[in-house]
Amino acid sequence: MSDLSKLAPTELRQLCRTGTHTGPTAGLAPGILQANLVILPREVAYDFLVFCVRNRKSCPLIEVLDSGSFAPTSCPGADLRSDLPGYRIYRDGKLSEEVTDIREYWRPDLVSFLIGCSFSFEAALMEQGIKLQHVERGCNVPMYRTNIPCAGAGRMQGRMVVSMRPLKPADIARAVEICERFPNAHGAPVHVGSPEHIGIADIMQPDYGDAPVIADGEVPVFWACGVTPQAVVLASKLAFCITHAPGKMLVTDLRA
Amino acid sequence: MSDLSKLAPTELRQLCRTGTHTGPTAGLAPGILQANLVILPREVAYDFLVFCVRNRKSCPLIEVLDSGSFAPTSCPGADLRSDLPGYRIYRDGKLSEEVTDIREYWRPDLVSFLIGCSFSFEAALMEQGIKLQHVERGCNVPMYRTNIPCAGAGRMQGRMVVSMRPLKPADIARAVEICERFPNAHGAPVHVGSPEHIGIADIMQPDYGDAPVIADGEVPVFWACGVTPQAVVLASKLAFCITHAPGKMLVTDLRA
Repeated sequence: MSDLSKLAPTELRQLCRTGTHTGPTAGLAPGILQANLVILPREVAYDFLVFCVRNRKSCPLIEVLDSGSFAPTSCPGADLRSDLPGYRIYRDGKLSEEVTDIREYWRPDLVSFLIGCSFSFEAALMEQGIKLQHVERGCNVPMYRTNIPCAGAGRMQGRMVVSMRPLKPADIARAVEICERFPNAHGAPVHVGSPEHIGIADIMQPDYGDAPVIADGEVPVFWACGVTPQAVVLASKLAFCITHAPGKMLVTDLRA
Repeated sequence: MSDLSKLAPTELRQLCRTGTHTGPTAGLAPGILQANLVILPREVAYDFLVFCVRNRKSCPLIEVLDSGSFAPTSCPGADLRSDLPGYRIYRDGKLSEEVTDIREYWRPDLVSFLIGCSFSFEAALMEQGIKLQHVERGCNVPMYRTNIPCAGAGRMQGRMVVSMRPLKPADIARAVEICERFPNAHGAPVHVGSPEHIGIADIMQPDYGDAPVIADGEVPVFWACGVTPQAVVLASKLAFCITHAPGKMLVTDLRA
């Protein structure tokens, strides 16, 4: 991993393309924007696009590709069918396969959406001396289903999924200031403290990711999470859908 | 007009609805966001929405309504079919009628797009002591077709239209700083000086709006303009399209 973290985005994508790197992308290409990937048939792409526009904090759109295209303009030379470390294929709203290449699944009616991810603001928080327990422990960030309604769009309806990072009271305002400079990476938190107010019954039992460690006096701070669009897509029980595998993002050429 | 400028957005929209106010909205409801309106059949709405996502400076999306809906969530109680002072109906890419009410034109397949407009940042510039010649002279801002390509989306292809405001060299950097705080109103300028570099042959002959007055030493500063989506829609020669009439915006309930 220490060698991987020094590679340029094009080199990392090449290692994914050849099947050499099939692991997570957290910590790779520091300072570079990483993106969630959602691929849908054209017939449902309009509803999904409207959903993203109406829920920008959960779904900050980096790029929408033309139908059938797998070459994002934000990463010249990249191939979305092979340049991520892993993909999940969903059929009728259920996980069907997890693969490292989707060339054999490709269809001319597929529309690819690149959506910002929290790695960008996490790096900025740590640079400013704000410690993130899940990173220090090498764990996934804890994520929770909430009762916060998303603005629906056609077939796409659902509630927000949030990620949680415990912060010291003295760091919270500064963390908000830092994160609001990253509108392409979910922006400022959506909720501070009181998990029960957003429908989280037990903060120690996340719905996705790993259980947190919250030190005495730390406050749970919640951000809109890129799992939201995935959860909404799955809940809508589409016949076919492809996403990146958890933690295995597209490393773009853009600065975070 | 002096009385109108003191009215709340709901009162202004009511005056439009009853046909009492059919004039421009410049200067009305200070501090409130005004919006461009584009209404398209559902079959072309996807291409237009992707175009907006790919060209955010020209087309800052405030809201996309559901097909057939004329009740924006950003202005509860408003009716997009009657609450603007004027509308233009286009057929096959040509202006067909200019009307003050579109209820008789409404169809269940129409999708309405609200797009930010420059009135928001102009008010902020003037509050900061930056004079705008077209406002002081009671004229429309000059607008120009450029050679700056927009990122195309399906049937929606074209070049950027810009608005121009002459500024003193000492004010330019400050104007950029102020405007970049208004991403919903075209944000920071796209070009400073050298109109010929963006394909403008004669700065004194705008393609839309009124001819400018540029004082000695002032520099022409160019912003992405909300006429861009209208120009692109017209160039694509859609069978049917409705927009607001020039200068006759939707006064929303949102702060600028």
